[in-house]
Amino acid sequence: MDIHLQKNSMRKDVVLLAILILTSLKIFAQQGNIKGFSTKTAATQLQLEKSFDQQLSAANIGKTIKELSAKPHHLGSAQGKLVAESIQQKFKEYGWDAKIETYHVLFPTPKTRLLELTEPSKFTALLKEQALAEDATSGQDGQLPTYNAWGADGDVTGALVYVNFGLPDDYETLEKLGISVSGKIVIARYGRSWRGMKPKIAYEHGAIGCIIYSDPKEDGYYQGEPYPIGPFKNEHTVQRGSVMDMVVYPGDPLTPNIGATKNAVRIDRSKAETILKIPVLPISYHDALPLLSALDGLVAPEEWRGALPITYKIGAGKAKVHLKVASNWDIVPAYNVIAKIKGSEYPDQWIIRGNHHDAWVNGAADPISGLAAELEEAKAIGLLVKAGYKPKRTLVYCAWDGEEQSLLGSTEWVEDHTDELRKKAVAYINTDGNGRGFLEAGGSHALEQLVDGIAKEVPDPLSGVSIFERRKAKGIVSATSSAAKRSLIKKDSLTLGALGTGSDYSAFLQHLGIPSLNLGFGGEDEGGEYHSIYDSYDNYVRFKDKDFVYGVALAKTAGRAVLRLADAEVLPFDYTNLYQTVGNYVSEVSKLATQLKENYAVENQLISEGRYQYASDPATPYLAPKKNPEVPDFDFSKLNSALDSLKKSTAKLALASSNVIDNLPENVENVENVENVQRAQRAQRSQLNTVLFQAEKQLLNPEGLPHRPWYKHTVYAPGFYTGYGVKTLPGIRESIEQGNWETANQQIEIAAQSILNLSTYLNTALNK
Amino acid sequence: MDIHLQKNSMRKDVVLLAILILTSLKIFAQQGNIKGFSTKTAATQLQLEKSFDQQLSAANIGKTIKELSAKPHHLGSAQGKLVAESIQQKFKEYGWDAKIETYHVLFPTPKTRLLELTEPSKFTALLKEQALAEDATSGQDGQLPTYNAWGADGDVTGALVYVNFGLPDDYETLEKLGISVSGKIVIARYGRSWRGMKPKIAYEHGAIGCIIYSDPKEDGYYQGEPYPIGPFKNEHTVQRGSVMDMVVYPGDPLTPNIGATKNAVRIDRSKAETILKIPVLPISYHDALPLLSALDGLVAPEEWRGALPITYKIGAGKAKVHLKVASNWDIVPAYNVIAKIKGSEYPDQWIIRGNHHDAWVNGAADPISGLAAELEEAKAIGLLVKAGYKPKRTLVYCAWDGEEQSLLGSTEWVEDHTDELRKKAVAYINTDGNGRGFLEAGGSHALEQLVDGIAKEVPDPLSGVSIFERRKAKGIVSATSSAAKRSLIKKDSLTLGALGTGSDYSAFLQHLGIPSLNLGFGGEDEGGEYHSIYDSYDNYVRFKDKDFVYGVALAKTAGRAVLRLADAEVLPFDYTNLYQTVGNYVSEVSKLATQLKENYAVENQLISEGRYQYASDPATPYLAPKKNPEVPDFDFSKLNSALDSLKKSTAKLALASSNVIDNLPENVENVENVENVQRAQRAQRSQLNTVLFQAEKQLLNPEGLPHRPWYKHTVYAPGFYTGYGVKTLPGIRESIEQGNWETANQQIEIAAQSILNLSTYLNTALNK
Repeated sequence: MDIHLQKNSMRKDVVLLAILILTSLKIFAQQGNIKGFSTKTAATQLQLEKSFDQQLSAANIGKTIKELSAKPHHLGSAQGKLVAESIQQKFKEYGWDAKIETYHVLFPTPKTRLLELTEPSKFTALLKEQALAEDATSGQDGQLPTYNAWGADGDVTGALVYVNFGLPDDYETLEKLGISVSGKIVIARYGRSWRGMKPKIAYEHGAIGCIIYSDPKEDGYYQGEPYPIGPFKNEHTVQRGSVMDMVVYPGDPLTPNIGATKNAVRIDRSKAETILKIPVLPISYHDALPLLSALDGLVAPEEWRGALPITYKIGAGKAKVHLKVASNWDIVPAYNVIAKIKGSEYPDQWIIRGNHHDAWVNGAADPISGLAAELEEAKAIGLLVKAGYKPKRTLVYCAWDGEEQSLLGSTEWVEDHTDELRKKAVAYINTDGNGRGFLEAGGSHALEQLVDGIAKEVPDPLSGVSIFERRKAKGIVSATSSAAKRSLIKKDSLTLGALGTGSDYSAFLQHLGIPSLNLGFGGEDEGGEYHSIYDSYDNYVRFKDKDFVYGVALAKTAGRAVLRLADAEVLPFDYTNLYQTVGNYVSEVSKLATQLKENYAVENQLISEGRYQYASDPATPYLAPKKNPEVPDFDFSKLNSALDSLKKSTAKLALASSNVIDNLPENVENVENVENVQRAQRAQRSQLNTVLFQAEKQLLNPEGLPHRPWYKHTVYAPGFYTGYGVKTLPGIRESIEQGNWETANQQIEIAAQSILNLSTYLNTALNK
Repeated sequence: MDIHLQKNSMRKDVVLLAILILTSLKIFAQQGNIKGFSTKTAATQLQLEKSFDQQLSAANIGKTIKELSAKPHHLGSAQGKLVAESIQQKFKEYGWDAKIETYHVLFPTPKTRLLELTEPSKFTALLKEQALAEDATSGQDGQLPTYNAWGADGDVTGALVYVNFGLPDDYETLEKLGISVSGKIVIARYGRSWRGMKPKIAYEHGAIGCIIYSDPKEDGYYQGEPYPIGPFKNEHTVQRGSVMDMVVYPGDPLTPNIGATKNAVRIDRSKAETILKIPVLPISYHDALPLLSALDGLVAPEEWRGALPITYKIGAGKAKVHLKVASNWDIVPAYNVIAKIKGSEYPDQWIIRGNHHDAWVNGAADPISGLAAELEEAKAIGLLVKAGYKPKRTLVYCAWDGEEQSLLGSTEWVEDHTDELRKKAVAYINTDGNGRGFLEAGGSHALEQLVDGIAKEVPDPLSGVSIFERRKAKGIVSATSSAAKRSLIKKDSLTLGALGTGSDYSAFLQHLGIPSLNLGFGGEDEGGEYHSIYDSYDNYVRFKDKDFVYGVALAKTAGRAVLRLADAEVLPFDYTNLYQTVGNYVSEVSKLATQLKENYAVENQLISEGRYQYASDPATPYLAPKKNPEVPDFDFSKLNSALDSLKKSTAKLALASSNVIDNLPENVENVENVENVQRAQRAQRSQLNTVLFQAEKQLLNPEGLPHRPWYKHTVYAPGFYTGYGVKTLPGIRESIEQGNWETANQQIEIAAQSILNLSTYLNTALNK
């Protein structure tokens, strides 16, 4: 509420108002130590954070990683249950109220896996990683075999076609070359898109099976020495992983929108949209080499070629493969560990923190390294609480199960607790596997200033400069032009990435509109262990965060976010950042439309003028490209005018936020007046805080995105054809990209309305 | 001479002047069928070209290729002499006056070649290509072994360092990584720069030996199927080639600036600047693999990695090699075949046409495919002459020897005939190996309109559309943005590339300033046979221009250029094109300076602000980058003002050229007047033609370029560190690139003066 503008609703005497204004102006100058805190409370908070840091132990993080990654502990395994129980036990030891919430989720595990080249020669794929003496856990029992969960059962034989990364663009290229994958089996390399997109898009183009392999170009000797000499994929390493169509909805395929409780009403498996329709299998480059070598036909375009010592060809000719996959389609328990410390002042405002605990195999890096940091935070906070600290808001620390199978544990929990979370969840802070290097931070842009403030305080553990400075320097040095470098040098605040999917924030952010963050360190810890038997403690201490100091840095970063959100007088949300970022997105989609119109027009001109024909090799048959549809002029004016409104509202909100910080006016001598001031401020703050953390929900569209109603956020979503990769303003952007002009126009209206809703919501709340 | 502006020097009566003006205006509207011809003479010329085309036989071109590439015929070989004599014989049969002009040139051939890995394991390189049943000539006697001519004799052992392409930038990268090649042996891959640059730059950085290998990424299975299945390099194929420092001067190293006649005064071999100071050896990827696999140290940067199935590392550690090379440094005869048909009207204006005849081995593609086209032109012209055709200007058809050793034959001939060529040479038209695909045309920009006119008339032999349309379409389709495509669609005239070096035009263009063209077809005939034993007839008919129809297209193109230059009433030079192109070059170098200043300033800021340090991995030792020098503001105003003058002069010249075309005024009845008109026009034309073909020499600087006085053209030169790759306005551009600010300023003055010289020359000539 903006006290400068409010006359009707404020029933205070003039003196009080004058004091408030004076105070506000003073605060406006002094504030800034910590966003959301007054000078005085900021000092207390900084002291608290200092004490917090002192409790964090790198050695203990290492111990936790070793302990929890000691054995394979995937969803549904006995070891998985033991890990969950051990985490619960730790929370309890740390003084938290911890319980396990169990859901019952579908989980396919392999029964049959067969891949063989049948023509022009014979080869049977090994489908097996190798135990190594250098990696103590690599030969353990209980490992899930190499496979992709959620591919269909199937037994298919067909001509093999190499489809590069299996992106929509790759199929456009194939079409231009006159090659169809219909009735054939495709082989795609890992990379560029989330793995689940590859079989989905293959199926949309008529393929009957999909093989995904790790090319040494992206993930093997081309990048560096293979394991165990270096950290990169050796010839037998395989990336497991889910291929669920999670961009439609994540979580248990049988219980969309509801928690997968014991007695939840389940849909029939055959009706589950997110289970694929064709069999899929991931393979190593050892297994891929004979298949790719057998391909004939056209030489693959230059950008399609990997690092195997062969001429990459497209195939669709003589080479044939037989692919047989069958799974056990069992319902298994998923154990979420939920630990709480009740808030002293606002018990119904929840700061939620999470990291999954399940792994594909041992998962030392993914997810245990992130979980160990979270547990270290919980330990430190527990100790602070024992020493008298009382967080104002309730802390909810979670360890999710079944993340690897596409966010099963977190999604089911969120769906199960929807009503409560809608009311109480202030923010969700996620981490996942952690590494070494630079702060990687994505999330709701209203939280950008919070993360900026934290990043400027947390030191990089090896270099000593702040993690902000390192991230900024990396950005500058990586920029490809001097102009870009100059502009990054000038920018002295952190930019949050937008969130797609790939970890447990999706249900919070994209389904319920709960402001979310995803944090971690990386960039100096490359390797190929991801989702393989080599994601082990032995690997982690050689190639990742060997002294666990980035584990501590992560705990400091995420812990500060938790503590500041827990104790802020005014919640550290700033919707000006969100407004600016959305403004950039609107410019982007508008340019996208203009550029597409221009590109299509030029392409069509080239086609009609015969340019493609003249440029093509006359010695080979010419395939005329298809003409592109005409792109209409989209009207972004409503979106821009909604943005104008939002700009005004966010400016008012920013002013109101800075005005209600509790700071005793130094020159007020009348005690009664001081108390009045404080009481008034508390009331304002309480109201304002609710406004702040509920505001992002205004950006949800209850209908959800086109073809995927589960995803309701109009600003952030995983891409329908990129998977993990985010699409901002997804309804508009993807409709344009996919050529659905009518839908694009509707989505412009919807996005404009949601932005206007946010603006109106802020205005109304401030005017109360 | 511009008749509209000239009053003093023209002593004609007013009637004549009026007729001339009327005629000119009329021509101005009608002209355009062929540049340099009147409507009437254009019709005759078109008829001549039609007859010319009818004499061209694809079958005969194929026969010539087969015959002349039947055996290895390098410089100094007995077979080379037989080939020269056979060419002379053909010219004679075709009715030309043909002789052999012999020069005596230094030519090193291998005596000893040894390359072995000595540590950490042993491997001796094969240094041998394999005879193949699929390639009839691949096992013949008389092949030159795989080697690089002009490397020093030497016997060196040292640590091996991988230097990527061996470009100056690659050594900057090594310096940033803290790696020196001093006292070590480097291994560089072929590509990106001319091969001779690699050992030269290695030597400048202290290396004691240089190995050059063909990586399968650029030239092997990565590009397509290896030979003999496909056309690309197999594991044993080696690219031979000269590594002479020909960017200092090409031709015989012992006779710079003078013809290497029998009794020419030779410098001592040890004084010859263009012979390298370290031993060099080219190897196959079969031989390179064990060497590269043995390297330890840092993983090579991503853009350094090739397509061998290894982790590319930089080395400079444990891996050591022993390299021993010794040559026979013999003086051998180089046989240039020179054939002439004397001009009927202007016998002292020479149209020179050339292609070399020597090969590294059999050379079916390089150079015989181009030579066969030239011989086919000579045959056709001979037949036309027998049928009564009389070229106005003298035709000089040349077949050069010793091109492969760095333009020995052509350079010595030009140096030997300097005075005569300065007076008589109108233009030089070069071809070399010919392939299949798109017209590749480079040369003096004054000849751009000539080539444009020809390219619009010659049909692509396979598709039937003009070679201009195919080239244009390829350019449009290859452009990477819609804006670039649109701008290329609009541009309806051909753009000539600028010439660096790599074939026999260098002495003509860059030493003497004779307007030159280099023509050929390519782009649809990729392969790895270049300078190997597989550049054979068998290879050519499978993978190059199998029906020899692009040989005919080349003869049509180059033949038209010859015939039009021979018979034009006004020589088809247009300096407006040259002015515009040089204007673009001036913009480029000016932007280059500005961008370098900005880049260096930003880099220095990053260094002083510690950004590189913060962005670097704190777990590895930090190497502080060196600060860059400050780049001054260069003053390009003289250059720009010279360009302004040139603009005016070229506009006047263009008008004068179009005004003096011979066209009988239809309404002139008085015969005497007609004769007067014709006489006056002939006088004008004669004078104008000399102006036109001598003008480019004004762009020469008698002092030559910095550190290489042989290269005198201020607009075009091979790059000092790129080799074949052209540098336009080389004095300015290279001084800026190399950080020689003072030289850059001097070179701006020099270039401005040469442009002003051209402008003044044109003005003076026109005012006579």
